[in-house]
Amino acid sequence: MATLLKSTAAPDALSSLFRNVRALSEALVAPLSDADATVQSMDDASPAKWHLAHTTWFFESFVLRDHVPGYQLFDDRWPFLFNSYYEVEGPRYARPRRGMITRPSLAEVLCWRAHVNAALIEALPELGDRARALVELGCHHEQQHQELLLTDILSLFALNPLAPAIWDMPRGAPAPAPAPLRWIEGAHGIVEIGHDGTDVNAGFGFDCEGPRHPVLLPRHALGDRLVTNAEWRGFIDDGGYERPDFWLSDGWTWVQREGIEAPLYWRHQPDGEWAQFALDGLHPVRPAAPVTHISYYEADAFARWAGARLPTEAEWESAAATLDPLGGNQLDTAGPARPRAATNGEGLRQMFGDVWEWTASAYLAYPGFRPAPGAVGEYNGKFMSGQFVLKGASCATPRGHARASYRNFFYPHQRWQFTGLRLAKDL
Amino acid sequence: MATLLKSTAAPDALSSLFRNVRALSEALVAPLSDADATVQSMDDASPAKWHLAHTTWFFESFVLRDHVPGYQLFDDRWPFLFNSYYEVEGPRYARPRRGMITRPSLAEVLCWRAHVNAALIEALPELGDRARALVELGCHHEQQHQELLLTDILSLFALNPLAPAIWDMPRGAPAPAPAPLRWIEGAHGIVEIGHDGTDVNAGFGFDCEGPRHPVLLPRHALGDRLVTNAEWRGFIDDGGYERPDFWLSDGWTWVQREGIEAPLYWRHQPDGEWAQFALDGLHPVRPAAPVTHISYYEADAFARWAGARLPTEAEWESAAATLDPLGGNQLDTAGPARPRAATNGEGLRQMFGDVWEWTASAYLAYPGFRPAPGAVGEYNGKFMSGQFVLKGASCATPRGHARASYRNFFYPHQRWQFTGLRLAKDL
Amino acid sequence: MATLLKSTAAPDALSSLFRNVRALSEALVAPLSDADATVQSMDDASPAKWHLAHTTWFFESFVLRDHVPGYQLFDDRWPFLFNSYYEVEGPRYARPRRGMITRPSLAEVLCWRAHVNAALIEALPELGDRARALVELGCHHEQQHQELLLTDILSLFALNPLAPAIWDMPRGAPAPAPAPLRWIEGAHGIVEIGHDGTDVNAGFGFDCEGPRHPVLLPRHALGDRLVTNAEWRGFIDDGGYERPDFWLSDGWTWVQREGIEAPLYWRHQPDGEWAQFALDGLHPVRPAAPVTHISYYEADAFARWAGARLPTEAEWESAAATLDPLGGNQLDTAGPARPRAATNGEGLRQMFGDVWEWTASAYLAYPGFRPAPGAVGEYNGKFMSGQFVLKGASCATPRGHARASYRNFFYPHQRWQFTGLRLAKDL
Amino acid sequence: MATLLKSTAAPDALSSLFRNVRALSEALVAPLSDADATVQSMDDASPAKWHLAHTTWFFESFVLRDHVPGYQLFDDRWPFLFNSYYEVEGPRYARPRRGMITRPSLAEVLCWRAHVNAALIEALPELGDRARALVELGCHHEQQHQELLLTDILSLFALNPLAPAIWDMPRGAPAPAPAPLRWIEGAHGIVEIGHDGTDVNAGFGFDCEGPRHPVLLPRHALGDRLVTNAEWRGFIDDGGYERPDFWLSDGWTWVQREGIEAPLYWRHQPDGEWAQFALDGLHPVRPAAPVTHISYYEADAFARWAGARLPTEAEWESAAATLDPLGGNQLDTAGPARPRAATNGEGLRQMFGDVWEWTASAYLAYPGFRPAPGAVGEYNGKFMSGQFVLKGASCATPRGHARASYRNFFYPHQRWQFTGLRLAKDL
Repeated sequence: MATLLKSTAAPDALSSLFRNVRALSEALVAPLSDADATVQSMDDASPAKWHLAHTTWFFESFVLRDHVPGYQLFDDRWPFLFNSYYEVEGPRYARPRRGMITRPSLAEVLCWRAHVNAALIEALPELGDRARALVELGCHHEQQHQELLLTDILSLFALNPLAPAIWDMPRGAPAPAPAPLRWIEGAHGIVEIGHDGTDVNAGFGFDCEGPRHPVLLPRHALGDRLVTNAEWRGFIDDGGYERPDFWLSDGWTWVQREGIEAPLYWRHQPDGEWAQFALDGLHPVRPAAPVTHISYYEADAFARWAGARLPTEAEWESAAATLDPLGGNQLDTAGPARPRAATNGEGLRQMFGDVWEWTASAYLAYPGFRPAPGAVGEYNGKFMSGQFVLKGASCATPRGHARASYRNFFYPHQRWQFTGLRLAKDL
Repeated sequence: MATLLKSTAAPDALSSLFRNVRALSEALVAPLSDADATVQSMDDASPAKWHLAHTTWFFESFVLRDHVPGYQLFDDRWPFLFNSYYEVEGPRYARPRRGMITRPSLAEVLCWRAHVNAALIEALPELGDRARALVELGCHHEQQHQELLLTDILSLFALNPLAPAIWDMPRGAPAPAPAPLRWIEGAHGIVEIGHDGTDVNAGFGFDCEGPRHPVLLPRHALGDRLVTNAEWRGFIDDGGYERPDFWLSDGWTWVQREGIEAPLYWRHQPDGEWAQFALDGLHPVRPAAPVTHISYYEADAFARWAGARLPTEAEWESAAATLDPLGGNQLDTAGPARPRAATNGEGLRQMFGDVWEWTASAYLAYPGFRPAPGAVGEYNGKFMSGQFVLKGASCATPRGHARASYRNFFYPHQRWQFTGLRLAKDL
Repeated sequence: MATLLKSTAAPDALSSLFRNVRALSEALVAPLSDADATVQSMDDASPAKWHLAHTTWFFESFVLRDHVPGYQLFDDRWPFLFNSYYEVEGPRYARPRRGMITRPSLAEVLCWRAHVNAALIEALPELGDRARALVELGCHHEQQHQELLLTDILSLFALNPLAPAIWDMPRGAPAPAPAPLRWIEGAHGIVEIGHDGTDVNAGFGFDCEGPRHPVLLPRHALGDRLVTNAEWRGFIDDGGYERPDFWLSDGWTWVQREGIEAPLYWRHQPDGEWAQFALDGLHPVRPAAPVTHISYYEADAFARWAGARLPTEAEWESAAATLDPLGGNQLDTAGPARPRAATNGEGLRQMFGDVWEWTASAYLAYPGFRPAPGAVGEYNGKFMSGQFVLKGASCATPRGHARASYRNFFYPHQRWQFTGLRLAKDL
Repeated sequence: MATLLKSTAAPDALSSLFRNVRALSEALVAPLSDADATVQSMDDASPAKWHLAHTTWFFESFVLRDHVPGYQLFDDRWPFLFNSYYEVEGPRYARPRRGMITRPSLAEVLCWRAHVNAALIEALPELGDRARALVELGCHHEQQHQELLLTDILSLFALNPLAPAIWDMPRGAPAPAPAPLRWIEGAHGIVEIGHDGTDVNAGFGFDCEGPRHPVLLPRHALGDRLVTNAEWRGFIDDGGYERPDFWLSDGWTWVQREGIEAPLYWRHQPDGEWAQFALDGLHPVRPAAPVTHISYYEADAFARWAGARLPTEAEWESAAATLDPLGGNQLDTAGPARPRAATNGEGLRQMFGDVWEWTASAYLAYPGFRPAPGAVGEYNGKFMSGQFVLKGASCATPRGHARASYRNFFYPHQRWQFTGLRLAKDL
């Protein structure tokens, strides 16, 4: 992967990227207490403190330790605690017990961050290509964890019967209902997708996004906007969660075993309506906003109910190729990220931002894929079984992190991310 | 799916197919006691008696009940017991408890079979196209269960410390080691795969095998034969099960949680060698024979260890398109099915028969896929998440059941089927 | 334990006991098919075939192998399969997998029984005291397994939606409702309980029944008969299973986790009434009969609801000391054992037979208890934690097996035995 | 229970008791961060913050809300969070999720405490007998939670690979080995045990400690001191954890399933020695100190290995009746409670303090036991199944909480309390 041989960023840009990324993480945890930042809500999630520490461990281990002569680890007992899944880096603390680590405290971890930030900024001008590539990789890695940090803390606060808001936010007037869905025909025949790591102008990409390669698309169309909460409510009211014929077999088992009857964080209200718990607390479900916190199983069942299907990864990426990945409702500053209603307009909207879009594609290797060498090569390739690709970006994705070739992936039952769907159909 | 509108078989051929298929099932259970046929070895498996009954339920419900005026159910309490997963057909007995049904007995179920066989053979000349298509579907359905019957009974006998043989078999001289692997280049560019249900000459195919559609293949080569037990032994001896870098993350978790250190049914012997339990009892592992009873995780790890990869479904199918699916080591009569060593020769060998071959492709819908209508439409489409495609056929596949477009599928941890692998590589 | 040094039975009596016990086991399985006898319904239960084999293993190992010179094991691979929990006797097949052993068949196990029976009857006249004591112990051991055999096969048949009867039985007229409960005052002050192993006239007793020792009883009274199904129905109708204040904490957790709402084998009927599955199939609950298949938690909750309590072991045993343990509704021949309504009359009734009575006493060692030496010493003492004592006998207890000092024991959630209750109160 | 009708304490004494108890809780959490106080280490344990809040809820609900006209709840959403198991008080937050409640914070809970403390101290002079009895009960209740608070925080810190000390403590010189065990004969015949709630001079007791009643003791003797770590090391070195003949059946299952090989918190050191994690961090096991953090299964196995047995509750209580329950190594101030070596001397030592002593007695109702009326009656009686009694007091028991009739109880596998053992034998 080119990124590991040579950074795609100019020197000043890399320094600026690093500073901005690191600062955003710290801003995101500003409303959190030591306890908020320490507790782990479930096995899939990690404590906020762990995200802060793990991303710091990445820079300290792969850049400072490996590329800065004489650098001393801040605390040589901490790597064991904050390695995530890099087997090559040695043993690590069991994932489901991350929330047991009350010490070091949030304050101590922030101190570590400051120390590593300073050391890295000082070292940056002298770093070679490979080390600079690792700094850039570390920034993108930390952006991923920023999104997880938001979704994980939401997952935790959702367990608190007091339904505390992480950020307060004025409610404002409800958005108008978006116009009915229109179908936008996509390209067909041979198109190219994937990230070209050999192109010096291609910018950063993770190893799993490449190689760039041709694919063959059938005739098809995509919905011009995301599926809304109001449309989802129609699915529920039509017995969507009660009729097995809409569901994959594994999905139906999941619905019945878990007692699923609505998106995650939707709650029955005494008046028969639905409320939704979010980063700004509990509020009535907003009909015009995109539905979010749904599993692949739910997205797939909805599409079948609607007489449509999910897009494939290649269809989505092809359609997004000419759109601006910096646009849309993405994360710029700390605050209560939430999906927003589609604006009126022509063509595809909400492709980047608001919610990650489930595709019908399994997360597997592209033809010719080779993992990056070394420990960082454990990054993406080893997750290639059982997961589905999500495309785009969400309201919790740091702006600048997304691109058309980006491959997000989760298991089909997972839904604590800002996940939603866009319909597709054959033509 | 065309098969559900009109049978692909000529009238005499259909009658003959039905008789032969039904007779083979009964021959397969001939060595089994009532208890052998009743016990369920694990949730994934079913009792032999259940397979006999379930396939009979299929013909009785979908053909006799629905298409033969005046037909009376043999016993109206049995459909509840022997429906498998057809939600539309109403409630059914919980799968993990199938082994609790000691009554009706094996003899009674065989009696039911005789009754249904006679009724169906009598009705066959008068059946319309749709009913005949269901008979044909039922025969292919039963062939699938014949293979499961063999693998499920093997799974059960493997739990018996006495290691009983289901069929005795003379051991014979060991096969010579096959020649070193050679690489056979495949087609690249646009090729067509899938079953064409609109072609009256295409023969039978399940709904999920179509539509026939173009795909784009990269340059690649396939191994000319299957991976052998001797080669697998090399993987074990090189620490294959101990080094996480060969493994998918989910695979490594599985290896550690389950204590996996060899293919299923391999057992350490006191002399340090490996034995294998099979339908003909416990015997030393045969070095020249293809490795079998491996999971996708194992197949994938082996390929990585070997510096190769697994074929994609399209690569495999393209290569098999001109080969005879009736050839190879497949099941003709009741007996101890087992994989055989590759013969010497040119070109691709062992493509059909011996073992099912794991591919790198997830089991997902082809472009334009529509499930068959009605209850039988629950047959294939609803399993399209989390599973991988296997191609070819095994020594336990009834000859005539396989074809190039056939899509077998299992979860990546499952390995009680006759599963193996063929290597592939990019060119 | 005296029984292990010297048999309590006269020579002829021992031979007769042995023949009768062995014959009854075989009569009990006469209605069972090979499959019926092979399947294990749950971890707590064992297959009928296993009971037949395990009791045979006991005689073969501890008597024939150890005390009859030249005796050859019938099959030296079977002890591994049919040892239960005697750690000293070496490794054994995992209990939850007992139902996986389809071979040897029921017929082969019956053949083993015939072989061992003949060998033992031939050897009996020459056996020394210790071996004769082991024969006697083996008979009592087998009687225990006869009761388990009945309850285990009932547990299995209850899982069959067809609700097959093991024995058909004419229903007869319903029994009249027994007279209202009367209280019978018991002895108080110092009384002696337990089995005196040093008394040559005391008859057989298990090691855990002794030593005989004094206990101090408070003033108290026992109900003159068992609690009936009609009375239990009153508990249900009064919300007994819905009100936590009646329940022990562990019991309430169990009720909620398992969805308990009636005794085991009671089933809602479409007409709102209750039916009960039993050895003679499914029939309406008989109001006058004693309630059975209840857990300790249920017995305790009922007693609290009724303003009473359960008897202690010592209270029960003291009251039973002068009653005939050979009386009452116990098992004489193979057939559908079931509890019967109390007769009219004076004094304590139903103390032996009908159902085992839960006591408020934990199953723990008596003062001065010492386990029997050797492997058979693992028999009782090692279960002394977490279980409660049951006294009396049930309709499935072979007549002659029970006595006042007998200590049956189960975990408080278990209820697949014929368990019921008698009320007690302080005076 | 008399204590619920009328307090046993004089007015000034009750005020003083209340102030002291409340202050000690707050001192115990002084070293804890917000995160330390929030996280739950396992289902059996609760967060320190929860203990602080729950004990406050007790006073606010049962005294201020119910007995102080016009009292307003500090926050009416909190009772749902901090009720423990009082079903009558309505629904409550699921126990295993107590550690998910990051808000209210530790600081807010301490604020609540201050508010309730002030309100209660103000109200105390005007409270009637029943309310005063509840204040006294609440103090004893809080003392129980103080001990749990220490053991729960120890359980949490033990999961931290950094092994942080909660309190630092100078190590000092090792204690000399205590003299060999001597046997002290106890009383036999009829003795009285239990707490006499009808005796105005009897002081406070929980409902389950009464009624006072006669019991019959056999001739027996107790060890004059606790079993030491050095003696336990002998058990380990003699294969104590590897030989099933020492163990109860449930205990042996537990040892094998959990991989138990030493007391909880003992850790293998690289030099082959054992270290122990404690409230003052990780240090070498102190040979002369009493063994602690052992389960009933372990205590029972050790006693069997030693050729002895555990004392019964009545033997222990009878022996303790004339000893001073205020003596010994108990908790006076916040700090690293730990068991200390026995002093030299005559007679029974270490009866109160150091460690709770497992007895051979199940925790069941005394003759004539009646639970206290109302919600507080759920306090003890509903736990009477499956648990064993422990007597005495530990180094973490607040001095003044223990008495001879005190009945502590835990499940036989639990060992995160300061549990140990004293041997007994028959004479």
